[in-house]
Amino acid sequence: MPKISEKGLQMPASPIRKLTPFADQAKRLGRKVYHLNIGQPDIETPESMLNAIKNIDFDVWAYTPSEGTLAYREKLTEYYNKLGYGITAADILVTVGGSEAITIAMQTCVNEGDEIIIPEPFYANYNGFACMSNVVVKPILSYIENGFALPPIAEFEKLITSKTKAIIICNPNNPTGYLYSREELEALKSLCLKYDLFLFSDEAYREFCYDGREFVSPMHLDGLDENVVIMDTVSKRYSACGARLGCLITKNKTVIAAGLKFAQARLSPGMVEQIAGAAAVDTPDSYFEKVNTEYTLRRDTLVNRLNSMDGVFCPNPGGAFYVVARLPIDNADAFCQWMLETFEYENQTVMMAPATGFYSTPGSGSNEVRMAYVLNTSDLNKAMDCLQEALKVYPGRQA
Amino acid sequence: MPKISEKGLQMPASPIRKLTPFADQAKRLGRKVYHLNIGQPDIETPESMLNAIKNIDFDVWAYTPSEGTLAYREKLTEYYNKLGYGITAADILVTVGGSEAITIAMQTCVNEGDEIIIPEPFYANYNGFACMSNVVVKPILSYIENGFALPPIAEFEKLITSKTKAIIICNPNNPTGYLYSREELEALKSLCLKYDLFLFSDEAYREFCYDGREFVSPMHLDGLDENVVIMDTVSKRYSACGARLGCLITKNKTVIAAGLKFAQARLSPGMVEQIAGAAAVDTPDSYFEKVNTEYTLRRDTLVNRLNSMDGVFCPNPGGAFYVVARLPIDNADAFCQWMLETFEYENQTVMMAPATGFYSTPGSGSNEVRMAYVLNTSDLNKAMDCLQEALKVYPGRQA
Ligand SMILES: Cc1ncc(COP(=O)(O)O)c(C=O)c1O
Ligand SMILES: Cc1ncc(COP(=O)(O)O)c(C=O)c1O
Repeated sequence: MPKISEKGLQMPASPIRKLTPFADQAKRLGRKVYHLNIGQPDIETPESMLNAIKNIDFDVWAYTPSEGTLAYREKLTEYYNKLGYGITAADILVTVGGSEAITIAMQTCVNEGDEIIIPEPFYANYNGFACMSNVVVKPILSYIENGFALPPIAEFEKLITSKTKAIIICNPNNPTGYLYSREELEALKSLCLKYDLFLFSDEAYREFCYDGREFVSPMHLDGLDENVVIMDTVSKRYSACGARLGCLITKNKTVIAAGLKFAQARLSPGMVEQIAGAAAVDTPDSYFEKVNTEYTLRRDTLVNRLNSMDGVFCPNPGGAFYVVARLPIDNADAFCQWMLETFEYENQTVMMAPATGFYSTPGSGSNEVRMAYVLNTSDLNKAMDCLQEALKVYPGRQA
Repeated sequence: MPKISEKGLQMPASPIRKLTPFADQAKRLGRKVYHLNIGQPDIETPESMLNAIKNIDFDVWAYTPSEGTLAYREKLTEYYNKLGYGITAADILVTVGGSEAITIAMQTCVNEGDEIIIPEPFYANYNGFACMSNVVVKPILSYIENGFALPPIAEFEKLITSKTKAIIICNPNNPTGYLYSREELEALKSLCLKYDLFLFSDEAYREFCYDGREFVSPMHLDGLDENVVIMDTVSKRYSACGARLGCLITKNKTVIAAGLKFAQARLSPGMVEQIAGAAAVDTPDSYFEKVNTEYTLRRDTLVNRLNSMDGVFCPNPGGAFYVVARLPIDNADAFCQWMLETFEYENQTVMMAPATGFYSTPGSGSNEVRMAYVLNTSDLNKAMDCLQEALKVYPGRQA
């Protein structure tokens, strides 16, 4: 029997799916499980997008250009230039989800064995993409006490070696919800210019900023054009995760030209999706206002409930639809599993993601969990009732 | 300005797109260009598939499981078991096109620096996928004289080293159209068992076998379950290239489990596509009969026209929709470019793919071109009129 590869062995499994068998087991026992573990919004996809699918009008479902259709890239340009990115269609590679944009950015910009610095906790699949590209992730701790703000630049500088090639920020952040300020981005800019680093900006959650706070992208900063690579997706923006449609944006022509070769190898992004994606650009502002009102309400509900529990601390994040909360527990993995395997309150329980999966520094996050507020407030409240009861009886409770 | 990666530099550009600027230029001059260069069929996508898209009925365009929906995998099982593959839904990973199935197969099964043997000429993007995975391609020449039959097993054995991990066959073949016989597959089976190699079988063109000839897959061979990995796609089968829907199939549980981790990193294949793909499984046999009648007619037209030209030789392939022909020319790249840049016959010309892009042994294929018969016979005849005239006046004509 031929052996699989080292990479096949080393590739990390998805940490948010590890507990799925326990959730399935709870369901088999007839328990209602509130899913706060994954970032699959319950929000409706804009009608314009769904109608674009229903109204397709072609006989041959054909490849599009590898970089995406000109029609879609031009439409995207409208969207991004409204935000002030100042780009042209030639600065965009349409990708299969934000996921592929991350892969292409890493493969195009970072040598094998070279290093990327990422504030942790971070989106766990960066580990998988780094493994696929033989890139080394250097985590830099951010702290729940200040809401997971950007670590001091001096801490970044301590990590920089001749192998450092890029920094990834996810803004607003998954898993913490933290929204980076203009000052933080300016500080990153100086750092990237000083050390000649790429700045990868994962903006999957760009549309979800709360309390009237401003979203700032490295695309808004002068003099950083050659360094910035945006990794974007329609997945969360339009609650269209199943579309697998994203893009990589950069004004660095060398990166676009090299990235195109990776895009050509896999031929084409989805054709129907690009039609739907173009229609989505005309989604009215009222859609986002409604969605953001809803998410704000959910965030407030969740954060208030959490902070009212004995021994629990949860910062109030400025964006995305996640929170990371600190719980009075010994071990987040054991606790989340126990919630599914053993606990029930009125025949209900909650699935959460242990924060350990979002840290790569061993031992970090062992008393933290990530929750996605992708359920309505009524369900969120019921989920919080469960958690509150659970924390009273969990055998591994800490003072 | 930060530098791109070595891999970004080394990644091969798509050889079939290299001449596109010259085709665009010809079009700007008002010339009609017959595109025989790419495998984008003009055949209509089955109505059942298009209707499935038009009839979508959901409010949230959501992620599916990373391995694909159970509904689609079960439907696929029907399709494959009719062919005698004897698989279950658990043996399938749904992928983003056949392209992703190739990437996942390589990353899961082959170590960096290890070798894959591929009969050449071969599908050029294998080079790109190998580059992405740091896998070394060892080409083994097949010859136009015998229609690009499988090279003798003794030739394979000469290439086998301790680093050899897999063999890729594409059956029926792109670019040659060659359909491997049961005997050839049995020979490969013995070889793979003897040296403990994976056998990757790219079956993108499975449905296109002509003259009543039998399609044999390594899945039909006994005792090879742990070695065989099928890389498949709906792109050509249903003329649905823009769907980006494929799959990896293997009965090797270790490969499926490791491949799933790569699939999890990129979250999900397309949701609408899987609905359409499930509908496609019920495409009536009459659809394929009609398509195959059409392709047979085109192949015969093309092959007859080619062989009637002075100094041209073209084998009559058993499958797919490509031929590789030998022309009386000095240099296929120069010739194909000259066809677009300089030549016209009645204000028309032909775009072909120089076969050099499908060989990795330097110098091979320099008097060969690949043509895809993705145009109707009337256009094919006009394209052949052009080629015939072109060969009379091409300055680099060889005796
Ligand atoms: C931070 C972040 N980046 C990228 C992605 C990838 O999303 P997709 O591939 O669906 O576009 C996700 C999905 O959850 C995410 O949270
Ligand atoms: C031999 C072969 N394999 C794989 C593919 C990939 O096709 P897709 O990614 O569209 O499924 C192609 C496309 O032309 C092909 O010819």
